[in-house]
Amino acid sequence: MATTPADSGAGSATPGHKPPGYLHQKDAHLKRLRRIEGQVRGLQRLVESDTYCIDVLTQVSAATRALESFALGLLDEHLAHCVSEAVANGDQDAQEKVKEASAAIARLVRS
Amino acid sequence: MATTPADSGAGSATPGHKPPGYLHQKDAHLKRLRRIEGQVRGLQRLVESDTYCIDVLTQVSAATRALESFALGLLDEHLAHCVSEAVANGDQDAQEKVKEASAAIARLVRS
Amino acid sequence: MATTPADSGAGSATPGHKPPGYLHQKDAHLKRLRRIEGQVRGLQRLVESDTYCIDVLTQVSAATRALESFALGLLDEHLAHCVSEAVANGDQDAQEKVKEASAAIARLVRS
Amino acid sequence: MATTPADSGAGSATPGHKPPGYLHQKDAHLKRLRRIEGQVRGLQRLVESDTYCIDVLTQVSAATRALESFALGLLDEHLAHCVSEAVANGDQDAQEKVKEASAAIARLVRS
Repeated sequence: MATTPADSGAGSATPGHKPPGYLHQKDAHLKRLRRIEGQVRGLQRLVESDTYCIDVLTQVSAATRALESFALGLLDEHLAHCVSEAVANGDQDAQEKVKEASAAIARLVRS
Repeated sequence: MATTPADSGAGSATPGHKPPGYLHQKDAHLKRLRRIEGQVRGLQRLVESDTYCIDVLTQVSAATRALESFALGLLDEHLAHCVSEAVANGDQDAQEKVKEASAAIARLVRS
Repeated sequence: MATTPADSGAGSATPGHKPPGYLHQKDAHLKRLRRIEGQVRGLQRLVESDTYCIDVLTQVSAATRALESFALGLLDEHLAHCVSEAVANGDQDAQEKVKEASAAIARLVRS
Repeated sequence: MATTPADSGAGSATPGHKPPGYLHQKDAHLKRLRRIEGQVRGLQRLVESDTYCIDVLTQVSAATRALESFALGLLDEHLAHCVSEAVANGDQDAQEKVKEASAAIARLVRS
């Protein structure tokens, strides 16, 4: 990430086309996902080296929780956005977004 | 809320002080909870009559899912309400409600 | 519970037909389920008195967690029993019980 | 598995040091984990291309479920192994493994 100056370059090519806050969040999301990818690769190394099953399961739970946290962060952002949109564009649009968000929450709770 | 003094009139003294839609929902919620209460009492009967453990577990999963569905229904209503409130009262208030709702979602996902 | 001597009477009619440890567990299970039943009745009171949605959700999460803990306790006992049975009755029988238990665990994890 | 001599060829540095059945499972586990790694990389592409939040969440739920299925498969194997061990080595050892497995199940159910 320190080694990807292109990232900020990409953002700055079209100044103002995205709020800086959003760009920052996007980088944070990608960082989190790269860490989760690392956890899943770590699981492969554990299986390859015949690590004791229970220890593998502990690491699976950690990866699952990391994915859930990522989802909860994304959802929080999305709901905040829905509300701002409701203020700007009116109730009707936003109520449909809420329906959609509720379905996504149900999938998360049940997965 | 600040604009609905009838609310503080509270209770049966002011019949019809709540929209029928809301009342209907409340009855539906109570009905669901009574059914879940029945499921939990059913679990007690299973344990009392020494029902096979795996069959008890199947019924526990059913009760857990019923509680989750109840929570998801409540949450959906709440989010819809947040959005309406955002339109009526402005973004700031509603954003705080979103924070609160996100915390509740996290508790649900992790429980 | 202090007022149900019949409980121990029921056990003592056929002395030795169940290990005391089991009877003790059964009482503990019923106690837990009665507490969960109380939690679900508490939820009904919250809904009846128009408690703020987020506070209701917090109590739903608590009841869900209590049900899960009950299930996990039951499962732990069951697995211990499977293993003892494997020693007494041979591998084949017990492997079938393991299949059954795994299916129950999957239902719990996914509910 | 008895019919896949190639499998033992894979482990050929120390031929026969692991039962072919186990090797087969290990390959299946690694395959699943590689697919999950692909899902997590897919999530990064979705975030990078500013995919709509709800669609990202759907894919997160899919990855979470895949991790859970992997864990459930591992656990099922482990429990079957515990039971075989109980028959071979006695109840005491196996009961400790059950305690350990129950703790792992609790982490899964609560994650």
